[in-house]
This record gives sequence, structure tokens and C-alpha cells, in this order.
Amino acid sequence: MRAIAIVGYGYWGPKLTRNFLQSDGFDRVLVCDEDPERLRRVTRENPGAGTSPSFAAVLADPGVIAVALATPVATHHPLALAALKAGKHVLVEKPLATRSADADELLRAAAASRRVLMVDHTFVYHPAVQRIRELIQAGDLGRLNYIDSTRINLGLFQHDVDVLWDLAVHDISIVNYFTPERPTAVQAVGSAHPPGPLSSIGIVTLRYPSGLFVHVNCSWVSPVKIRHILVGGDKKMVVYDDLNPTEPVKIYDTGVVAHTDEERNRLIYDYRAGDVFSPRIAPREALANLVADFAAAINNGKPPLSDGRFGADTVRILEAAQRSMASGGSEIRLEWS
Amino acid sequence: MRAIAIVGYGYWGPKLTRNFLQSDGFDRVLVCDEDPERLRRVTRENPGAGTSPSFAAVLADPGVIAVALATPVATHHPLALAALKAGKHVLVEKPLATRSADADELLRAAAASRRVLMVDHTFVYHPAVQRIRELIQAGDLGRLNYIDSTRINLGLFQHDVDVLWDLAVHDISIVNYFTPERPTAVQAVGSAHPPGPLSSIGIVTLRYPSGLFVHVNCSWVSPVKIRHILVGGDKKMVVYDDLNPTEPVKIYDTGVVAHTDEERNRLIYDYRAGDVFSPRIAPREALANLVADFAAAINNGKPPLSDGRFGADTVRILEAAQRSMASGGSEIRLEWS
Amino acid sequence: MRAIAIVGYGYWGPKLTRNFLQSDGFDRVLVCDEDPERLRRVTRENPGAGTSPSFAAVLADPGVIAVALATPVATHHPLALAALKAGKHVLVEKPLATRSADADELLRAAAASRRVLMVDHTFVYHPAVQRIRELIQAGDLGRLNYIDSTRINLGLFQHDVDVLWDLAVHDISIVNYFTPERPTAVQAVGSAHPPGPLSSIGIVTLRYPSGLFVHVNCSWVSPVKIRHILVGGDKKMVVYDDLNPTEPVKIYDTGVVAHTDEERNRLIYDYRAGDVFSPRIAPREALANLVADFAAAINNGKPPLSDGRFGADTVRILEAAQRSMASGGSEIRLEWS
Amino acid sequence: MRAIAIVGYGYWGPKLTRNFLQSDGFDRVLVCDEDPERLRRVTRENPGAGTSPSFAAVLADPGVIAVALATPVATHHPLALAALKAGKHVLVEKPLATRSADADELLRAAAASRRVLMVDHTFVYHPAVQRIRELIQAGDLGRLNYIDSTRINLGLFQHDVDVLWDLAVHDISIVNYFTPERPTAVQAVGSAHPPGPLSSIGIVTLRYPSGLFVHVNCSWVSPVKIRHILVGGDKKMVVYDDLNPTEPVKIYDTGVVAHTDEERNRLIYDYRAGDVFSPRIAPREALANLVADFAAAINNGKPPLSDGRFGADTVRILEAAQRSMASGGSEIRLEWS
Repeated sequence: MRAIAIVGYGYWGPKLTRNFLQSDGFDRVLVCDEDPERLRRVTRENPGAGTSPSFAAVLADPGVIAVALATPVATHHPLALAALKAGKHVLVEKPLATRSADADELLRAAAASRRVLMVDHTFVYHPAVQRIRELIQAGDLGRLNYIDSTRINLGLFQHDVDVLWDLAVHDISIVNYFTPERPTAVQAVGSAHPPGPLSSIGIVTLRYPSGLFVHVNCSWVSPVKIRHILVGGDKKMVVYDDLNPTEPVKIYDTGVVAHTDEERNRLIYDYRAGDVFSPRIAPREALANLVADFAAAINNGKPPLSDGRFGADTVRILEAAQRSMASGGSEIRLEWS
Repeated sequence: MRAIAIVGYGYWGPKLTRNFLQSDGFDRVLVCDEDPERLRRVTRENPGAGTSPSFAAVLADPGVIAVALATPVATHHPLALAALKAGKHVLVEKPLATRSADADELLRAAAASRRVLMVDHTFVYHPAVQRIRELIQAGDLGRLNYIDSTRINLGLFQHDVDVLWDLAVHDISIVNYFTPERPTAVQAVGSAHPPGPLSSIGIVTLRYPSGLFVHVNCSWVSPVKIRHILVGGDKKMVVYDDLNPTEPVKIYDTGVVAHTDEERNRLIYDYRAGDVFSPRIAPREALANLVADFAAAINNGKPPLSDGRFGADTVRILEAAQRSMASGGSEIRLEWS
Repeated sequence: MRAIAIVGYGYWGPKLTRNFLQSDGFDRVLVCDEDPERLRRVTRENPGAGTSPSFAAVLADPGVIAVALATPVATHHPLALAALKAGKHVLVEKPLATRSADADELLRAAAASRRVLMVDHTFVYHPAVQRIRELIQAGDLGRLNYIDSTRINLGLFQHDVDVLWDLAVHDISIVNYFTPERPTAVQAVGSAHPPGPLSSIGIVTLRYPSGLFVHVNCSWVSPVKIRHILVGGDKKMVVYDDLNPTEPVKIYDTGVVAHTDEERNRLIYDYRAGDVFSPRIAPREALANLVADFAAAINNGKPPLSDGRFGADTVRILEAAQRSMASGGSEIRLEWS
Repeated sequence: MRAIAIVGYGYWGPKLTRNFLQSDGFDRVLVCDEDPERLRRVTRENPGAGTSPSFAAVLADPGVIAVALATPVATHHPLALAALKAGKHVLVEKPLATRSADADELLRAAAASRRVLMVDHTFVYHPAVQRIRELIQAGDLGRLNYIDSTRINLGLFQHDVDVLWDLAVHDISIVNYFTPERPTAVQAVGSAHPPGPLSSIGIVTLRYPSGLFVHVNCSWVSPVKIRHILVGGDKKMVVYDDLNPTEPVKIYDTGVVAHTDEERNRLIYDYRAGDVFSPRIAPREALANLVADFAAAINNGKPPLSDGRFGADTVRILEAAQRSMASGGSEIRLEWS
């Protein structure tokens, strides 16, 4: 008997539950939530899933070999730590933790207990993101000059974290996936509307030793929804529009070229220098891929794409961004071993 | 005899020449350029325009009552100063100068000579921008929370100034037009691709006493062209897409609202909370409006929208942004009297 | 005990099942299909639903008061007739039948048995379509001049009906809902790719006594998906883009105006004559509205929007279109009593 | 001395004048119009052009070797005939004539006088259209199944011809350019809003011996502007969006494939079966290419792309469409020798 327990049945828990039920990686799917009304919803929506009101009971159950935490961000560290110490494999909703020290403690606990620690950075498993990474790794884009991400929409306020930990976390994990480099300088500014302690707009910039420059613009208060990532290489450039259902990835055969004065006039009518190619992106669901990767990591020992180290790197960058934002945008230096 | 002399016949000069020829604000239009080949182009393209190879001769000509400078940025200050001292009214291509001290000197010279000093911030005369300003002034948007501008495209490298002075100058002048407030804190970071002294990507943030937060993202190295400004008020929000030929301005009947947990799920499918209205924008050309405003200022003494003070404010903000960028993004404080 | 039985669990049956389960119009939901593998899928996907392999048994069950037919088009008439004669209320997937005589026989059977006969023209229940009908009924658009619909995409080949009965059926039902008028002249041409008896491209035009002109362009062989309906009134015009998630309905404050020669030039840059308004469309699911309307019709006797008469009118127009297409596009006249 | 005379200075004449002035194909450019006000406009706008108030004088002038007719459609035949008989080369604004017999007479006159007769089907010279034709000729699209064109916008009413002769003429000439085949069956219906003798909406379908099916939807009374041509081959498909400034041509690696039942469900989320490629289209102006082709035909004897035969074929198809429309949409058969 190899069961997975999803902990927390709020916004994300139901999605995880559905995907684990459809996966064949576990013999049984259990949902744990303290709220009896939510557990009734579990049974109604997923008759195949078991329920439990007690996290302690879940940890004590030897049939449960893994837990997936879909609880408020502040609880990620203590619950994940308890689960690892109880010998469970752990999948944590993003972010892994809110402090780098906490993330590191989880890494050590996972190593000590020889269990899988994985973070649910779903975008890393999106076929469009994976396709772009393949292009980068194959050298098709050349050297990366910049990544520019806009992730804005209306109203999904989080009550426990600001917009960096809610939205920029996606962009930073995507960037961490696109390149093995890690930023050595982080800056961030933000603004809260309505006024309050949690920023609803966040601007983050990252600098890398190679010269790569990353800019992230995220917002909860935009009247329009935009999810747009530009990746600029010195050979080609890519635009990833997550809201374009049929052509999410466009590859521009465009480099940076110097222009003479005469060419300048012409460019006004010709600001695109080459062909555009939009590869077909297979319509697999990212979360199903992630669930399969978690099961494979447990069964075969192959580290998942978004393992604990990957999640901890993301936390470290967000932590630095938060620190920069609190200081009014001063540059925070990071060293990576 | 009341003539206007356009100085410099490179990229912008021909546009000014055409608009001054079609305007009835002056009796005669003269183009001044040291390059004889360019002067032959003037005659071929604008048989109605006179030519002169000498700026000194233009200044000495009592029939010339005004000059319009369309010369490299570095020359704006010395040429404008000479023209004002020679008693000419002066229109300067944006930016007015590259140093705040120079801009202030021009303001003083204009006041001393009682001549019009105006800056060619063309966007301020664009009907879409004027319509948005009317909405703001009428209170339709409520209190301004943020302005978020993206102005990116490919390839129009300037050889004498960086992307801030070439592109962000537009956004900063638009923001200066939208609100009478001026920013008290300026930050900017940038990146140069290919590497060099002039940034091709610039990120600017401005903070205002009222809480208004402005973010500008400008780039010369994007494979796609985007000119997108969001204006977020606490009553309504506006999106200005300069590349949408039929609906450049959209007004969203959308405020920032707190959501209960239950509403959160629903919002995934309903992230727009209200109607959208796109007012008809009259297809007048911005540059024609600007030329008319310059002539009116000379004839009637009514200060133009983008007068010297307006242009000097813009220079001061850009200068601070440049200083911040040079220092790695530190906050520069500004005081406005 | 008041049960509904969904008959047929192929493409549409699962959607009906889910919606009937979420509705509170019936005490019990039963799915009937002869294929045991499909019945196993029912149980797996909808643990709350019962199953039955026999349509005869369903008809014989006095607890089943209504059936919803999601079976191949050719079976709609015989199965609906049997169900009505067995005293069941009947919801039929579109189209009601493939021959007008069959549709009329079903109308008579429903009248004789005093049961509800309803057709699943889902679009009629779509909030965007309902909003446009409200505008038309309120006189906001003025007199209707034309309706122009494009419904093209790739690959959903039906094996039993051609593109008219699969796609144009939507447009014709929407038009029938927008106006109480019925067309007195029908023409259609089509083309089959790959060659065969079933057209994959269909062009239908309808003419009305009032002067209304309707054009429908439907295709299974387009590389792009377009679902675009223009409604031209002499006061205002509406564009309904079913694929625009945030602004599906746009109302153009535009009438047909005569232009002088001089205005002609100007219009090249100004082909939109007025403001555009995009009302917020509530994100209710059309199928849930339809299911609720069916339950209300059974319980309260209020005829549903897409009742048997509505469905029979649609069949009659499609039948005429098919006849026109078979004759090479000759005009088919229709009289309506 | 080899002069070209542009006859008629209304809407199209100024564009021709500008292009002939910029071309080096003729020594002199003359504009002929009976209206003295228009001749004054010529001089103001094109100081390099001569003027003449008399068509007879132009024909009598031995220095004028060619005329370009930009006069009302009804005058094309008599003026072109007179010009050919006077020994001039002739470029006629589209359409060549309004009756096939008239077009044939012009062909004979051109042959008799050994002069170039060319029709201004500008789209044929558009780089995007030329690129698509190259794809077709190279066999990249496979066998052509269908061409579907939508050309709708607001308000450019012609006072002498209906929407077929004003708009569909473009689509029919483009189709004639894409394929050497000519249609053997033509059908058309239309509608007039406001009511009157000239249709403002026109629907044309063409059938070809090879099985090719062409559908054209053109309108003067649409609130939105759409210029969209789909070309469906059995190997690939192309979408040409004339209003997309950066990616006007998209090539879909998509054929028509049969689907099993199981694949059907999947397709709802995956209605595009392959990659998309958007070739860079050079920003040359179509009219400049056309003017160069006319000059080359005169100088080198190489027949222009849109020669008299090409224009006469287009007239013949439009004439058949008009006849079909007048008869209520009956099929008109055409034979081509």
C-alpha cells in the first residue's frame, strides 16, 4: 500500500487531488484538511479519494509514503519538516519556504531522511516552457542577453504573502529553469494598492555574471491579464505568450544589428528583421507532468526537475528581492557556491 | 515676413518641415542644414521650402522669427541658447537638454528674451493621450494608483544617447502631462546589448508624494513592438495601446476590490470586473497639433502644453534616472519647488 | 423519485451528465449506453450517476420522468418519438431531426403526450448571445440589416452529418433566437475536402421579408479557429467573438452613412465612426442555464427557450439549405404560417 | 521625351502620380483632369508634374507614350480604347471594364496597335501575395482545396459600381494570380444597405474543374475591418491577414486528417495540428512594383503580371457574378479556351 496524502483542500488542493487520482503513481489518494465541510467536498468531488481530518494521523500512517502540501505559505516549512522527519516524501506548493534558512533546513532534512523533496513549480512542467528551454540548451538562441517577463492581472489577492511570493515566484522559477546560472545581484521595488503591508505591484531585476539581465513586472491590480515572457539571445529571440492558446511560443529569427542612418528610416516600417516560427506545443497538462515526475523520483530515485535545491534557489532570490524592496530598492548581492 | 527655420534635416526634420508647410502659422518655411546633399533633398521633397547652409545666417536673418531644432541631442542646448539670444522663438526636439542645469539656463534665456521656448514632446499632442488626460482631470479614474508603461521594439539605435533619453523620455513626458505632480524618488537600472556605454534596456520607477507609482520598461532589443500604457485609478483603469489603430484607448470599469475566499475561485474565469468602453479617437496628427500650438504661443502669448518648464521637468527626471542607473539603481531624491 | 436519463455517453453525454448532476432539477441522474466500457467510464467519472445498458428499460422505468438524447443524429427522431410516447419529457441534442417531417411528428407527439420537448441549442443559453438579443429587442441596434457569421476550425469531422448540420446549426439557431422572423429564401453551396458525400465547407445565405440578409460561412478544414458573428443594425452594430475571453461582445456606435468624396480620403484612416462598448458578460456556463431551463419547463410548464417549435424551425431551414446545396445552390422558398 | 499622363486626379490618381514621379521609367509625368481646382492641387502636391485639362490634347501629344487611367469605372473602356487607338500604352485602374465584350475589344485594340495594356490590380504586386504564390507554385501547399476571403470594412461607398466591382475585384484577381485555373461555375448573392440598386454586401463562390472551391465575402457595412484570406492545400494551409503589420502571412503545417472518435475529444484543446511559420515579408510598396512592371513592359516587351488578358479574365468572372446576383444566385457556367 503506497498512498499519497494531499494536505489542504482550498484553491490548489483540489487540482492536485484530481491529478494524483488520474496518475497511476500511487495506490491510494488521501486528502487531509481540518475543516469537515471541505472533507465533505472532497468526497463529493472525488469519490475515489479517502479523507482525514488530522495531519498527525497522516504522518503516523505507514501506508502514506508521500504528502503534498497545499496549505498557506507560512506553514510550508513546519509541515514539510515534520513530514520529512516522519519519513515521507514531500511535494510542497510553491514557494518551498519564505526564508532561505528554512529552505536549507528542509534540504538537510530531506538528505538526512533520504526522501524526495520537491516543489510544485508547475510552470517548469509546462510544455511551452520546456520547449523554450530545449531551444536555449541547443544553442538556438545564442548567448542569453535578457529575459523580460510581465505577469499582471486583476484581483487574486493573497492574504499571507505579497505579489512577489505569489506571482514573481513563477517567473523566477522559469528563469532558474531556463539557465543554470544564478543571479549575483537582485533589486526590487513595489507598491501597495490599496495601501498596506503587502505589495500588489512588484518590479524585480536580476543581474548575472554572464551579463544576462532579467526584469519581472508583476501585478494584482491590472485591468487586463498579460502573461508575456521575452527571451533575448544574440542569435534569436523568443516570445512566450501564455494566453495565446494556439501559438504560445514564437521564435524570432532576429538578432541585434547595428543600423546606418539610412536604414533607420526604413526600419520604421520594418522593425522585424526575420522569419517567425511557432512550434506546435503538445497540449499536455503541466500538473500531470509534475505529478508523474514526483512519482518517478520516488520510485526510481531520479531527481525531479523542481527538486528541493531548485526550490531553495528560488526562495533565496525571492528573499533577496523582498529585502531589496524593504530597503527601497537597494542592490542585494548573492553568492552561489 | 515671419519665417520659421527648421534646423537639421535628418530623421525628424522632414516631418517638421512637412507639418510647418501645411500649417498657416508662418509666412515662410526655411530648412537649414550644413550638408548640401540634404538641402537638395529638401528642395526635391518640399519645393515650397527655402534652404540655408548656415545656422549663423539663419540667426542673423530678421525675417526668421522662430527656429525648430531637429539636430543631435548634444547640440540642443548650445543651439537653442544661441537662437534665444538672437531673439528667436525656439522649438526643440525632445529632450530639451541632457542636463538639468542646461535646461534651466534655457528657461532663463527664454524669460530674458521674452521668447517662446517649447519642446517637441509629440505624444502630449496625441488625441489619445489628450483624451486620457481629460478622463483623469474629470476625476473619472479616481485617485491615480499607478502608471505602467512598456515601450519596446527593435533596432532604432541612437548613437548619441541611451534608451532612456530616446524612449523613456516619451513615457516621462506623458506621465508629466497626466498629472501635475512630480516624482520625489527616481530609480533606474539598465543593460546594454551588445555591451557598451549606452543602455539598450532601461527600467525606471518613480514615486510620488500622493502614493502614485510609475514603472517604465523601455527597450531597443525586443523582437516585438509593444507600446502599452496602463493607468490605474481607484475608480477606473485605462489601457492605452498605441499600436491598436481602431481602439487605442480602453476604459475599464474596474476598481480594486477585496475578495472573499469563495470569490477567488470564481475570479479565475472572471478577472475583469466591469464593462469596457473604447471612445472614438479623432484621427488628427499629433505633430500638426503641436505645430499649431507653437504658432499660437508666438502669436497669442498662450503658453504651449509642452513649454520650456514642462521640458525642463522631464530633463530633470531623466537626469535623475541616469544618475540612478549609473549608481546601480540607488534611489535619487528630487525636490520640486 | 424524479430521475433524468442521459442516453449516449460519447462526446456530449459526459457534459450533460456533469451538468445534470450539478443541477438540483432532478432527484437522480442515470446514464444509458449499450457499451459496457462507456458505462464503466460513467461510474469512474461520475460516482453519483446510475447506469443502464438498455434504452427500453429506461423507458419502462416510471421513476425516469425525462430523457436527454446525446446519440448520433440519425437516431434523434426514433428515440425521441419512443420516449415521448412512453410519457417522458425529452431533451434532444441538436439538431432535433434531419427532416422537417420528422421534427413535426415529434412536435405532435409532444403535444399529444403533454410532455416537454426541448432541443439542446446550447448557444441560445450563452450569456453573450442573450445579451445581444436583449440589445436587439430593446431596439438599440435599430432595424437589422444583416447577420454575418464565420464558424471555422480544424478537424472535428462528424461521420454521420455534414458541416451544415454540425456547425451551421449553431448559427441558424442563434439567428432564430435573435429575431422572431423566419427566412423565406434559403441558398447554400458547399465543398468536400477530402472529396466525399459530406461537405466540409458550407456557405448559407438566408433572406427575410424585412430585408434582413444572413450569411453563414462554416468549415471543418480551416487551420485557424474563428467564431465571429457580426450583427448590423441601422443604428448600431455588434461583433460577437466567441473566442475572446474578456470582451466577447463589442457594440459599435456606427451606422451606415453616406460620404462625400472629400470624406472618402479621410475615412481610410478612420473607418470606425464611433465609440465601442464592451459590456461585461457574466461567466455562467451555457449548459447549466439550459439544464435549468429544461427542469423549469417540466416543473412549471413554462416553455423553454429552445423548445420543439424552435428546434423544428431550425431543422426546416437546414433541410432547405441541404436541398439547395444538393441542387447546386438554387434558391429554396419557405413559407411560415 | 517619353511622358506618362495620369488621367483623373480623384482618389487613386494622386497615388499613381506620386509613384510615377518616384519611378525612373518615364522622363516626364503629366496629370490630366478637367477640373481646374484639381489641377491646382496637382501643382501644389507634385511640383515636378505637368498638368493638362484636355484628354484629347494628351492623346495628340506625341511625347506622351503612355496613359494611366484613374477615372470612374464607366469611362475605362472608351478612354482606354481611344488611347490605344492613339498609339499609347495604357494602364487602367481596376476593373479593366464592366463588360467582358468591352474588355475583349480592348485586348484586340492593344494587339492591333502593339501597345501594352495593363490593369492596376495592385494586390498582385504586394510582396505578401507574391510570397504565397511562390509557395503554391513550389508545391508547398499541395493541391489547392479552397480559398476563403473576407474583405469587409466600413463606408467606402462607390457611387458608380457595387461592392463586387469595388472589393471582390481584389479577391478575384488575387485568386487568378494564385492559380492558372479559371472557374467554370460562378454564383453570387448580395444585399443593399441602405436599400438601393448597388449591393453593399456580396457573397461570391467559384468552382473549378480541379475541385478548387473559392468563397469571397465582401462588405462596405461592417463595423470592423477584416482582410483575411485562407488558402487551404492538402499539404499545408496559409492565412494572409493584410492588416497584420508584422506577420501578414502564416503557413500552417496542417493537412486534413481523419480522426478516430477518441482523438476527437483531444482535438477540442488541440485544433492546430502542426507548426506555424511566418516568413519575413519585405516592406516594398506594391504600387511601386506595379509602376516598375509597367515601365519594363513598355521598354522590354516583357508582359506585365496583370496584363490585359489577366484583367479581362477578372472582368469575365465579375460579370458572371453580377449576372448570378441579378438572377437571385443561380449558377453561371463559364468556358475558357
